[in-house]
Amino acid sequence: MSANILGERFVAMSFGESHGKCIGIVVDGCPAGLQLDESDIQPLLDLRKPGQSTITTQRNEDDRVEIMSGVFNGFTTGAPICMIIWNKDSDSRPYDLIKTIPRPSHSDYPAIVKYGGFADYRGSGRFSGRLTATLVIAGAISQKLLKHSMGIETIAYTIQIGKIRAREIPLETAKTNRYTNDVRCPDYETAQKMKSAILSSKHDGDSLGGIIECVSVGLPVGFGEPIFGSLESDLSKAIFSIPAVKAVEFGSGFDGSKRRGSENNDLYIKRDGKIITKTNNSGGILGGLSTGMPIIIRIGFKPAASISKTQHTVDVLTGSEVDLKVPGRHDPCVVPRAPPVVESVVSMVLADHAIRGGFIQPVLKK
Amino acid sequence: MSANILGERFVAMSFGESHGKCIGIVVDGCPAGLQLDESDIQPLLDLRKPGQSTITTQRNEDDRVEIMSGVFNGFTTGAPICMIIWNKDSDSRPYDLIKTIPRPSHSDYPAIVKYGGFADYRGSGRFSGRLTATLVIAGAISQKLLKHSMGIETIAYTIQIGKIRAREIPLETAKTNRYTNDVRCPDYETAQKMKSAILSSKHDGDSLGGIIECVSVGLPVGFGEPIFGSLESDLSKAIFSIPAVKAVEFGSGFDGSKRRGSENNDLYIKRDGKIITKTNNSGGILGGLSTGMPIIIRIGFKPAASISKTQHTVDVLTGSEVDLKVPGRHDPCVVPRAPPVVESVVSMVLADHAIRGGFIQPVLKK
Amino acid sequence: MSANILGERFVAMSFGESHGKCIGIVVDGCPAGLQLDESDIQPLLDLRKPGQSTITTQRNEDDRVEIMSGVFNGFTTGAPICMIIWNKDSDSRPYDLIKTIPRPSHSDYPAIVKYGGFADYRGSGRFSGRLTATLVIAGAISQKLLKHSMGIETIAYTIQIGKIRAREIPLETAKTNRYTNDVRCPDYETAQKMKSAILSSKHDGDSLGGIIECVSVGLPVGFGEPIFGSLESDLSKAIFSIPAVKAVEFGSGFDGSKRRGSENNDLYIKRDGKIITKTNNSGGILGGLSTGMPIIIRIGFKPAASISKTQHTVDVLTGSEVDLKVPGRHDPCVVPRAPPVVESVVSMVLADHAIRGGFIQPVLKK
Amino acid sequence: MSANILGERFVAMSFGESHGKCIGIVVDGCPAGLQLDESDIQPLLDLRKPGQSTITTQRNEDDRVEIMSGVFNGFTTGAPICMIIWNKDSDSRPYDLIKTIPRPSHSDYPAIVKYGGFADYRGSGRFSGRLTATLVIAGAISQKLLKHSMGIETIAYTIQIGKIRAREIPLETAKTNRYTNDVRCPDYETAQKMKSAILSSKHDGDSLGGIIECVSVGLPVGFGEPIFGSLESDLSKAIFSIPAVKAVEFGSGFDGSKRRGSENNDLYIKRDGKIITKTNNSGGILGGLSTGMPIIIRIGFKPAASISKTQHTVDVLTGSEVDLKVPGRHDPCVVPRAPPVVESVVSMVLADHAIRGGFIQPVLKK
Repeated sequence: MSANILGERFVAMSFGESHGKCIGIVVDGCPAGLQLDESDIQPLLDLRKPGQSTITTQRNEDDRVEIMSGVFNGFTTGAPICMIIWNKDSDSRPYDLIKTIPRPSHSDYPAIVKYGGFADYRGSGRFSGRLTATLVIAGAISQKLLKHSMGIETIAYTIQIGKIRAREIPLETAKTNRYTNDVRCPDYETAQKMKSAILSSKHDGDSLGGIIECVSVGLPVGFGEPIFGSLESDLSKAIFSIPAVKAVEFGSGFDGSKRRGSENNDLYIKRDGKIITKTNNSGGILGGLSTGMPIIIRIGFKPAASISKTQHTVDVLTGSEVDLKVPGRHDPCVVPRAPPVVESVVSMVLADHAIRGGFIQPVLKK
Repeated sequence: MSANILGERFVAMSFGESHGKCIGIVVDGCPAGLQLDESDIQPLLDLRKPGQSTITTQRNEDDRVEIMSGVFNGFTTGAPICMIIWNKDSDSRPYDLIKTIPRPSHSDYPAIVKYGGFADYRGSGRFSGRLTATLVIAGAISQKLLKHSMGIETIAYTIQIGKIRAREIPLETAKTNRYTNDVRCPDYETAQKMKSAILSSKHDGDSLGGIIECVSVGLPVGFGEPIFGSLESDLSKAIFSIPAVKAVEFGSGFDGSKRRGSENNDLYIKRDGKIITKTNNSGGILGGLSTGMPIIIRIGFKPAASISKTQHTVDVLTGSEVDLKVPGRHDPCVVPRAPPVVESVVSMVLADHAIRGGFIQPVLKK
Repeated sequence: MSANILGERFVAMSFGESHGKCIGIVVDGCPAGLQLDESDIQPLLDLRKPGQSTITTQRNEDDRVEIMSGVFNGFTTGAPICMIIWNKDSDSRPYDLIKTIPRPSHSDYPAIVKYGGFADYRGSGRFSGRLTATLVIAGAISQKLLKHSMGIETIAYTIQIGKIRAREIPLETAKTNRYTNDVRCPDYETAQKMKSAILSSKHDGDSLGGIIECVSVGLPVGFGEPIFGSLESDLSKAIFSIPAVKAVEFGSGFDGSKRRGSENNDLYIKRDGKIITKTNNSGGILGGLSTGMPIIIRIGFKPAASISKTQHTVDVLTGSEVDLKVPGRHDPCVVPRAPPVVESVVSMVLADHAIRGGFIQPVLKK
Repeated sequence: MSANILGERFVAMSFGESHGKCIGIVVDGCPAGLQLDESDIQPLLDLRKPGQSTITTQRNEDDRVEIMSGVFNGFTTGAPICMIIWNKDSDSRPYDLIKTIPRPSHSDYPAIVKYGGFADYRGSGRFSGRLTATLVIAGAISQKLLKHSMGIETIAYTIQIGKIRAREIPLETAKTNRYTNDVRCPDYETAQKMKSAILSSKHDGDSLGGIIECVSVGLPVGFGEPIFGSLESDLSKAIFSIPAVKAVEFGSGFDGSKRRGSENNDLYIKRDGKIITKTNNSGGILGGLSTGMPIIIRIGFKPAASISKTQHTVDVLTGSEVDLKVPGRHDPCVVPRAPPVVESVVSMVLADHAIRGGFIQPVLKK
């Protein structure tokens, strides 16, 4: 299958380049009968939009989503939903430079080799973080579908910027206050320090990495598939398609690797007639299947590769080593713009498994 | 597609249960003309075999692989290669207990719910770690194919057991000495401490987690695909299908999330006429594509869920909370048996991308 | 995906060669909770078995199916069902000849070129009609699943051998009497003439083609998918995977191409509270979806390529034209053995669409 | 996978509805480095355009293709190529009627049931013949790719309208003169009679069916895959996705079913140093693989379901039988518009197999 397609029954196919006419995505497999128009999608897209604060890139994109197909009389029809975001504010001039001079830790070098020099290099072309906007508009549909049909919700937020770690905040609080600060961190106090760190890094012409935590609640037990179709497999596959992600862990993750079984095992108890676990070190997934507990994922983003500092690199055409000052407008830290992207890809995978598992039927009841 | 199928062009389909007649895998897409017989596969399978030391389960399985199809006159034919391992030493009696009483942090509970009580629960059935033997026999083929056709090699070894971390060892050394000790750690001195920790944990009826590092060398530049088919996406999907894996990171991973761009970026330099990077924080992958530097993956395993201590759980039939002492023979730490499994799934993904990218043709030259 | 895999949710992967150890198939996606053992499968396999009459090949294969996985306590578990038929009576000696001398209208020549001489040529290897036995054992599961869950039945029978055409026989009669004569034709009288034609052709060292008709009843309305997933698309894909099939038509088929719309359109009427059509020229499918009327398919088989007459061909090694007398034991007409094969592939496609459309759930009710 | 996706390595995903904003298709897997702009596509699209003669529908669509992505500096980049055709002249008013009153032999009835009344019914929505325009624009790319990289060409033309059959015309002649008459038949004389038949049928408010023949030349030997991925399987799957197709045969097809093996077998001979066959009853395919001879396909189209005559049907809402005079503008015969559509889907399948088989590499040489 194409590398630009995700999913088996809730399927998305991405297209477009950072500085081309448009970027877009076709979503197929969304059941008929879901009430949907642009107003269900735009608010999520706005949360990811650049130019919203001093800590994001100043590229000024309107980012209006337009539904081209698959919706009729305000409801999904069961046909593919094509959505497009038209590119507007693209300044491709600075990129002529990188045609043959790869920026360190960008996709430039392997892309030049792989595509024999034919790839659209303007603004990183197909590899641009801008493409994550298409994930958000597809994810908006999956989020609405899951909420509407099964009561499943996915909430992502920043827990670390550089070396600064947020304190643990109850999920309900996180849900309401993460979008009320620029770094999207539910821990207000730490959020201020994170913002300062980003601005300080920006001032130095540098960038910062960070960690997003994502929690999905409302899943039934036994959702997912074994072996290669495990929830962890499919979720990580989708998450690693987000540029700059270099690490993914579920539940106690790498920390759990240091423990003994008796410390890490989640004991079953009964509460209000339901079987739940006392702890959730499994992150809501056992044997690739949901346990009914919240799915907990932590995602490590590397610091943005685009920095203003002069860096050493090699001109692939001439073969000579050169010093490069990366042109273009960039985010000093991509993490604050990532929560809606993470929620989106996680929701797309859950929607896919919801349909695969028979939890959502091909036509929603009127 | 089926959750039991991995890959697009180098495809594997797994079948079998821990205590059924056999476990097996069908590999399709291996080019015609690869010299192959059981002796290419058995040695890798032996490295994973239980009962080899005091720190693995005493289940005494012969684990002989038998090639059923797809090989003729000592060469692959281009047809599907079905391989089977017959089950022998399975004692299913202790498992009657867990039919309705789920073991903490095992797949039992979600599996009972998902399959309506029809799943084979003996020895964890389809969810058993025993199924990783099928990954190893499929992986043996991909390893030989990659080595033979492209000179690509994948080497995995233990770097952490519980809280004990190995020192960094040069890859060439790691390659030769990792299998000379029971924990599969290239750092001999630390290996002894790790073994003691496992034995001490075993003595307490407990288990331990750990971390495997996996390095692939010899890849050309521009191997892989963008977006959903990124190397990180496909590698993580395959790796998370290994039971007990809860965390995956590439290159500097979570540690890189704490850094600035100027610290984490890999600068290009020229050495012996080749473009390489000074550091390899990207773990050999940028934009989902290979950079030509080694692919570096670290994989976090949780402590084995099966411990001898009494644990609290709930009988799903009666609904009452009960105390359970888990029956059966188990590994006090699965990590030492994991390196061949990790190498295998990583190789399967690389073989798939080698064929998808046109690096390996459908018929090997005679 | 692999060319040896069929289906999306009800998936089958075929393996094995005509003269290898075994032939087999792995079926995945069959819901948990279907009562199943070998006795559900063997009778259908027996109907396809060679050596049953004077008009089939004398290769004497026992053709016993063995279920290797996916069934526990007499019920499917939701795990992949691997089934194997062991090869016994294979005489590979005559085939040394065809290693480089392709038999006319066999797969030999393109297979030699495609696989660079590595393919198993014995008894046509992977291209042998013997492989259709694996379709039958997979089809037996889909037939039982469809009958049990939805009351869907598929009935195939011979309607033409050479130039001899059967008269139309009511479906209920066809269902009961097609297997009571050697040619599998529900029209007894014509069946005798067909058998004579086959024997006469056999006597001349020649072979005969023919046509199978296949009818599926009991489908609900709106089963199937549009565009590339149309029932006609998926059914024809599966049917053309049967060796010797060269033509497929639905409903009035090629004959309908000669008509006017007013003659071919199926008018809706109401009978017993149900909307049906007066005629069924559409063969039960409109827009790729089921209309609720029987699905009607006619399938043209070419005469078996293996004949005893001397034929002209070219030695691919020496490049010289030669006369070849094809060795081995063969069917003078494959059509009489085809009905269970046709029923099987049709059922596999319908089972796949039943699951894709939410008509059958992942776990059957106890 | 989605029913709106075709192919494995050369992949197309269709979207859009007859009376929505647009129709479109995303093509992925086209190698980088193919010179491409709208002028490569538009001429083929024009050949399918309605309103070109008295024998096609008078719907007046401009049908301009617009490339949205995947092409940069006049060459394909290896990224997905999204192409859109904007809808203009759609008059949806007549279709309110059919919201609940299904037209005989249209997709209306099963679509209403399948999608619970949510499907876009205007102009048949997703099931409209108009969607074949998206196949043509995707097919234009595959045709150029195959011609450019391998010299493969595919030529389709009308050989039958109603009961009128064309005489056999040499392929070279057919190639040049099929588009010089309104029915797209290379036999001029018969073409006039066919046109008269269509006009007479149109005058009666009726429609006519017909047969298209399609020939692909220039294929190497051993192109294709065995079993479920046979050329016949994949070609028929794609062809049956064209609305109104009800029959497909390869080579001697149904006629071959009436023959003896000695009459139907294609004997190998040597001509100019190449192994070819004396006859081509196999239609260029044996064992699912190409023989190097032309691929010959005949495709039966039913008469267009839309006729102006009053027809009997049932109102699905009220349940009462009614008489319906189908509204809208329609083709009295769809066959003359079908050749570019047939060429397109056949080329898409061949391009897919060309890449799967390693005949075309991911980057074309500059």
